[in-house]
This record gives sequence, C-alpha cells and structure tokens, in this order.
Amino acid sequence: MRATVMYGAGDVRIEKVPDARVTEPTDALVVITHACICGSDLWGYKLMPPGGPGRAMGHEAIGIVEAVGASVRTLRTGDLVVMPFAYSDGTCPFCQEGLNTSCVNGGFFGAGQMGGAQAEAVRVPQADGTLVALPVSRDDALMPSLLTLSDVMGTGHHAAVSARVRRGHNVAVVGDGAVGLCGVIAARRLGAEQIVILGRHADRLEIAKAFGATDAVSTRGEEAVTRVRELTGGFGVHSVLECVGTDDAMQMAIGMTRPGGAVGRVGVPHYEAIPASQPAFYRNITVSGGPAPVRSYITTLLPDILEGRIEPGRVFDRTMKLDEVPAGYRAMNERKSIKVMVRP
Amino acid sequence: MRATVMYGAGDVRIEKVPDARVTEPTDALVVITHACICGSDLWGYKLMPPGGPGRAMGHEAIGIVEAVGASVRTLRTGDLVVMPFAYSDGTCPFCQEGLNTSCVNGGFFGAGQMGGAQAEAVRVPQADGTLVALPVSRDDALMPSLLTLSDVMGTGHHAAVSARVRRGHNVAVVGDGAVGLCGVIAARRLGAEQIVILGRHADRLEIAKAFGATDAVSTRGEEAVTRVRELTGGFGVHSVLECVGTDDAMQMAIGMTRPGGAVGRVGVPHYEAIPASQPAFYRNITVSGGPAPVRSYITTLLPDILEGRIEPGRVFDRTMKLDEVPAGYRAMNERKSIKVMVRP
Repeated sequence: MRATVMYGAGDVRIEKVPDARVTEPTDALVVITHACICGSDLWGYKLMPPGGPGRAMGHEAIGIVEAVGASVRTLRTGDLVVMPFAYSDGTCPFCQEGLNTSCVNGGFFGAGQMGGAQAEAVRVPQADGTLVALPVSRDDALMPSLLTLSDVMGTGHHAAVSARVRRGHNVAVVGDGAVGLCGVIAARRLGAEQIVILGRHADRLEIAKAFGATDAVSTRGEEAVTRVRELTGGFGVHSVLECVGTDDAMQMAIGMTRPGGAVGRVGVPHYEAIPASQPAFYRNITVSGGPAPVRSYITTLLPDILEGRIEPGRVFDRTMKLDEVPAGYRAMNERKSIKVMVRP
Repeated sequence: MRATVMYGAGDVRIEKVPDARVTEPTDALVVITHACICGSDLWGYKLMPPGGPGRAMGHEAIGIVEAVGASVRTLRTGDLVVMPFAYSDGTCPFCQEGLNTSCVNGGFFGAGQMGGAQAEAVRVPQADGTLVALPVSRDDALMPSLLTLSDVMGTGHHAAVSARVRRGHNVAVVGDGAVGLCGVIAARRLGAEQIVILGRHADRLEIAKAFGATDAVSTRGEEAVTRVRELTGGFGVHSVLECVGTDDAMQMAIGMTRPGGAVGRVGVPHYEAIPASQPAFYRNITVSGGPAPVRSYITTLLPDILEGRIEPGRVFDRTMKLDEVPAGYRAMNERKSIKVMVRP
C-alpha cells in the first residue's frame, strides 16, 4: 500500500510500504477514507534530523473497517469509524477514568513501530477500545467536522477543560492554528463569555470570530499580556488555552492568567521546564494539560457535531490526495493552509 | 515595643522599635499573645544578604485587639483574634472567590513596610476582612492548634486542595516540616486512603503517623519516586503535596504523580522554572498551588479544631519568650525543633 514517510526536516515522501493487516486478535484493519496533516507533524517537518529510519506519519483518520481480529466484539466489517490519535483498551484504570492517553495497553499512531494514518490503510490495535462507529455515510457533509474528533477538536476541548473554563469566564486562546480555533469552539461551548484569540493571521482570526472569539490580539510577549489584561478589567483571564508549545507561549499564557486561574496546555512542549514558576506561584495559577484523551471526548462532542451546534470542520481549508501530501506539509509549514484534509 | 528584626543570614535580633499603632481607619492594633517561627522564615535565615535595612519578622499570631480604627465594624477591644499571614479586605473580587492572598487591597505581614508578628504588638490593616475572633479564652488548651490557622494548617490544607485530594485517593507529602505534617492532617481530613510522608527525621515521621500517614519514605530523588510507585501499585499517587520549595522536591513530586494526578505546591519556590515539564505534560499532571488563602480556610477548619477532630498544634515542640527568638531560629534551622511557639 502507499503511505507517508518522513525522513527528515522538509523531507516527506509517499512510498510503497507493506500492507497494513490484522496481527493481533484485538486489531482492526481500517481503510482510510479521510485523514489529515496535524500541526504537531510540523515539529518533525522543521526539526527531524536526517539519516535515521523513516517515520510513518499521520494519526487522525476516518475510515471503513476492512477486517477485525478474532476477539473484537463491537465492530464489524464495513463500519465507518473515527480513529483517535492514540489507541487504548477502554478498560484499564486510566481509560475508566477517561484518561485514554495513559492507557496501560495504549500507544500513539505514527510513533515507534506503529503505522500512520496518512496512508491507504492502518492497523488499529485495541480496536474495541479505540474506534467509534459513526452513524452517517462516508459522504456525509459532516465528514470534515467528524474528522476533527480524531484530534484537534478533542484537543481544543482538552485545553478548555484543563484550563477549567466555566460559564461566564473570560478566556484567552494562545495560537490560531487548528487546535487554537477548536479551543475557541470549546471555550464557547463551555459557556465562556469573553474569548480573546491570540494570533497573527487575518484569515484564521476571521474563523476564530465565527467560532465565538470576542476579541483578537496580534501582538506577542509582554505587549500581548498587557493588552489581554486591558481587555479583561486589569486582572487577566480566568483560563488560558495554550495551543502552541513554546517557552514564549507558556510565558505569555501564565502572564495573562488572572490570580487563581488556570492554563490548559495542549501544544506539545518544546521547553524543558515551565517558565514563570514564581509568578505562577504567587498568583496561585494552575498549569494543567497534556495529550488529550480524545477517545473519551468523542462521546461528549459527537452529538454537538451531528446536531450542527458546532462546526469544527471549518478549520480545513484544503483537500488533497495522498500523492499531494508533501505539498500539504509545505503549505501548512508556510502558513498558507490552516489544515489539510487528505483523501487517500 | 520589642520586635524581631532580621539583618542577614543567621542574624536575628530582638530590638526596640516604634510602637505599632492604628494609622488607618480600617486598622486594628493587636497585642500578641502567641506567635511562631515559620519554615519560610528560615529561607531568609539561610540566604539574606547582610548590609540592607532590617526586616520585621513573623506573620503568624493570636492576640488581643487593643484598639480599632474608626471604620472597623466587626471587632471590639478585648477580642481574642487569630491573624492570617496575609491581610485582605474580604470584599474584593478575589476575596469573594476565597483567594484572599490576591486581595487587591491586601499584603503580607513581615514584608515591605509591614510590621511582623514576632513582636509585642502588630498593626493589622483591613482588620474586618483579616482577623477572626476566637470563641475561647487566651489560655485555652486549644491555643497551639488555633495558632496554626495563621499559616501552617491552612497552608497544608491548601496543598491538599490544590493537589485535588479526594476520598479514597492515595497521596504523597513531600517534606516533614510543620506544613508537611499539617498536609498529612489535611489529606486525611479530605478522605485520602493512603498517605505517604517523605522525610528523614524520625520524630517528625512519628507525628506524621499520628496524624494519619500510612507509609514513610526516607530516601530522595529517583529512589524515592521508585519507592512511592512501589507502594501505590506501580502508578504513583493521585496527589502530591509539595511542602519544600526546591527544584529537587518539585522534580520528585512530579515523578511520583500518577497520570492525571496533581501536585499542590505550597513550598515557596526557590526555582525559576518548574522542572519535568515534558513528563508532566505526557502524563497530564496538573501543577497548582501558591500562597494559601488561609483567611478563607479558617472558616472551614476552625470547627474541626474546636471539636477536637484535628490537632495540628502538635507540630509545636518548643515554646519560647520573645527574647529567646534568635535561639528559636537556630533550633529550627538546625532541625532541632519542628516549630517554635513564641509567647511575647
């Protein structure tokens, strides 16, 4: 089959690889109908050293179940399913608590020996715990929004939950990528009254406003902190959704948090230590977050998509075939595209 | 009047200073009957550079109201009151949310121009919002426990609240000082099932066990992390109360937290950045805490002391007169005393 392999910064190729297949009794084989390129894929696209073995790419997908292992109980061949970026058994203590990304039998697609979803098909371990069947047809108009349940919508929701967004809160969202934009939806959905988006791209800020952002701030650093405080009566916001993952972004996030407030971080951290330890301490600011347990959030968010209350699929601004994926990486890396949908 | 002044590391003196008095209409003048030396005072005792102006010491007290300003409504001369380590107006948005340590008209005793409580008397700003009248006489046997409401019991409780201790949780307490020991009480009070105390002093670990600790670990660093995981089925604890304030202690605290768990830090941080950012992220660990809003916790904790359900006063192992305070600092700094009560 054909699949996307990254060999180093800027070096993404579509290659022939061995066919994905069921190898464990708990596996499903899923033929991909929809995948996408993630902002987190761009970290490798910027920084991956060359010379090592290639890395299978992609961790977001919708597809059709083609085969299941002998012990799979809840899925049948032909089911249309959405696949979270992490697989999980659904039964371990962490899955039971809703933290599927810490499943004791879990792992991540496109990492280690696991195949990726920017491919014709993917082997899904722990299929019963991982996949969720969708009650629509594969050509439904909701497909882009349903695809965001794989990662970005659940991740934006996790940022909002981790930042303890409550009805009437004011919220800042650091980052205008697809996760930040979904964070705006999530904050609005949880009842935030004022939502400040921090970003520098007019097209993205437009979408943020359509999703419920009330204010936009395009400066950075101390200037942005000052502006957010001005916009919120001088104290800062109750909740910051940190959707970037740099030291600067965290510094800024903590700076604009109101005393007693919280930062929910979902941007994969590219910093060794969390900055601003002392300001965070003296203002009793909570720092929370991590890889989103999107599997458990699918249950929460799916009805809102099916009933049209939220439309996260608007973050996709390009659709490409598998062969065009390298161009998709370029477009996202150059900020010419917010998020690319892939139709293998 | 006589008061305690610190001039540098190891240099604490009892001096004649101008009498404390009411200067604002919202002030009360409190004559100190009970004060104490705090673990946080020892940071200055170890590190304060010499040569600067002296610093008035002490921020924990019980005393008698001697005079009140014209606008004080809830207190009368003769009232026996407990004084939190921070003053607060009780009415600002943060006080209303229970975060009195971020009061917009608040501040800290023994800091800046504010007098300290290791003295014969202290001026208390925002007296109505700050002081709590006690329904006992000044010689009541409960006095040591009531005195801990000034700081250490409320701070231990804040660590437990920030670490989200719940019924049935397992908990680790890093640090066997007075705050750590009160943290054990707080964790137990909130229903923790297993409480692991980390410390190295047999006498303190004895008290911890009397307070409800189920296990003690006397190693440090990675070794301690491994031991705590072994004690908790391999995953680590739901909640860690970080009651030290060093980089090593935070590193250890994050290391022993179960995925999805939380660290409540109340040790004044002597580190610029919070370590272990990436392990904390990948395990969805929350870091929370800061200066405890002990004023709002007095309401919560006072009944338990009055009715004998908790006995945090057992952390005091010495009582000294004001003139002996320098010896008290030495004793605490050399770990010969857990906590010194001062009777001016």
